[in-house]
Amino acid sequence: MGEEGKGALAREVFNLREAAQGIRRRLGEGIDTRIFPGENVMLSVVRFEPSAVGKLHSHVEEQWGLLLEGSCVRSQGGEEIELSVGDFWHSPSGVPHGMRAGAEGALILDIFSPPRPEYLKPGEGFGG
Amino acid sequence: MGEEGKGALAREVFNLREAAQGIRRRLGEGIDTRIFPGENVMLSVVRFEPSAVGKLHSHVEEQWGLLLEGSCVRSQGGEEIELSVGDFWHSPSGVPHGMRAGAEGALILDIFSPPRPEYLKPGEGFGG
Repeated sequence: MGEEGKGALAREVFNLREAAQGIRRRLGEGIDTRIFPGENVMLSVVRFEPSAVGKLHSHVEEQWGLLLEGSCVRSQGGEEIELSVGDFWHSPSGVPHGMRAGAEGALILDIFSPPRPEYLKPGEGFGG
Repeated sequence: MGEEGKGALAREVFNLREAAQGIRRRLGEGIDTRIFPGENVMLSVVRFEPSAVGKLHSHVEEQWGLLLEGSCVRSQGGEEIELSVGDFWHSPSGVPHGMRAGAEGALILDIFSPPRPEYLKPGEGFGG
């Protein structure tokens, strides 16, 4: 069914695995995301290939993340922590952070508020 | 390890299944949540018992939801849609919405922005 054939509610429903949905961005080598912008919140469904490394960066927008699959190590504010499926974390405005995936890769939901303006169009890199 | 023994980063990491974390709220019969407030975003980890019904309500805060386990039917803006694990959805400001869980119950991550002030302390009900 095409977008035009859906009801209003169906157009507000997405799926983590529906590769055709969202605004595509390559955050780094082996790190691809699909961006879903709202008014106050932006979601980012990020797939890390095994051992992919997301470089340290920072931005003014508050961020939360949720590890949905795989494993990873989070770097944030000069510390590191190993994360397991079901862990979620808060990254305050301006705190430098990065991520490296474990041997099986990782699937992560990132949440930004306010939405990151540089992520409103397809592109590359972490922005900021 | 007590909270006081953790590093700053460990205090920003939570888990979906860690029942002691978060501000508790009973949203309705068989619907319990744990609230995690940030500056611009508030997360709510909601457990629906089998067939539990979250009544229609609305609020000015934008909301997103993600179905992590189980199944449910979302009512929103006068429409209904059946949801599967991995589905996520956007509920714009002010649009009436509700949820009923399937036979196996449901685990849902709700995301609010701005944070809902009535959810900053333990309590009951959907507020608004």
